[in-house]
Amino acid sequence: MSHTKTFRIEQFADLEKYFRRNLMNCLSGYKSLNLVGTMDAQRQTNLAPFSQVFHLGASPALMGMIIRPDSVPRHTLQNIEATGYYTLNHVHSDFYQEAHQAAARYEGSEFEAVGLDTLFSEGFPAPYVKSSPLKIGLKLEEKHPLAINSTIMLIGSVQEIIIQEDCVAEDGFIDLEKLGTVTCAGLDAYYTGQKLGRLTYPKPYKKPSLI
Amino acid sequence: MSHTKTFRIEQFADLEKYFRRNLMNCLSGYKSLNLVGTMDAQRQTNLAPFSQVFHLGASPALMGMIIRPDSVPRHTLQNIEATGYYTLNHVHSDFYQEAHQAAARYEGSEFEAVGLDTLFSEGFPAPYVKSSPLKIGLKLEEKHPLAINSTIMLIGSVQEIIIQEDCVAEDGFIDLEKLGTVTCAGLDAYYTGQKLGRLTYPKPYKKPSLI
Repeated sequence: MSHTKTFRIEQFADLEKYFRRNLMNCLSGYKSLNLVGTMDAQRQTNLAPFSQVFHLGASPALMGMIIRPDSVPRHTLQNIEATGYYTLNHVHSDFYQEAHQAAARYEGSEFEAVGLDTLFSEGFPAPYVKSSPLKIGLKLEEKHPLAINSTIMLIGSVQEIIIQEDCVAEDGFIDLEKLGTVTCAGLDAYYTGQKLGRLTYPKPYKKPSLI
Repeated sequence: MSHTKTFRIEQFADLEKYFRRNLMNCLSGYKSLNLVGTMDAQRQTNLAPFSQVFHLGASPALMGMIIRPDSVPRHTLQNIEATGYYTLNHVHSDFYQEAHQAAARYEGSEFEAVGLDTLFSEGFPAPYVKSSPLKIGLKLEEKHPLAINSTIMLIGSVQEIIIQEDCVAEDGFIDLEKLGTVTCAGLDAYYTGQKLGRLTYPKPYKKPSLI
């Protein structure tokens, strides 16, 4: 390994603002990337990219998401609270630039503005991204304001999963490489994944092997 | 796009348990992967992989992490609560199998058991993974038990960042590809990232360009 550099908390305040923002946003590593689709009471659709979505549990199937209410996707939060529903849509490498662009401050629908079509599933009250290879319909369960920095954590229960059929293995594993799912880092970097392997369940004193 | 398959909430209960667990764990897409290093009051070190770590804010620099108290890394939670400190360590592709293996139920230290060396930074009371290309020292700030499924969200403030020097760009962006950072999916799949590009700040009615 080459030389290391150490940043300590006492120095953080002296870092140039944009440098600091980039650095801190990169710390967690590769992030999940999802386009969140919502609709207001007048059926005006909204779309925004989110990189702080995480698995919370399989039974019940729950997912968490962090929203900064002061940032661009404020309509997302309003719409989710108004209707109680939202969608998560994996971003394919074919449209990662459109996904990025959906974060711009548009007046009307970002679907139209960036050129992504909606898809509505019967009985589900939020719009999906038609070209997304993995679409998840969620119902808002809980809202946790985090006083420490005024962000909000939403917890949603999975209602519906629409997935490209040939990407679900017999054991339920989803092949993200085959789906073409994109991962992101920091504020503006996008990546595809290249599989190293799947490993057997970890047991003490026994090396894992490739599945 | 090929044919799609739809799973609805009414069917979830009928899915085979392992299939369901795999499927639900894959939904969020690529996940960040970090080894969490801790120590108890007797200086017994502990190491466990976590895939639910996320950026919470840059100023103050905060990171969130989800822990399932009933699962293997229970010592992690005990140690963080006892000492107030923990480390996050990016996993390099050279040791992703050791990182996976650190989730096994060992009696003693997982550092020794899986063959990863500790590194102590002066004045910081939790162990780092020596070979990790990006090490983050955190102080526990808040603990949020999530009643909905008995998971716990910890919020930590960044105290220290130790990073391979040639992987931080002039604007603060961290080059995860160069670091060799691994991302994961589901319960057992590991990947490296391949960059598509960095994009300029999204402005309405203006296509982003590559940085």
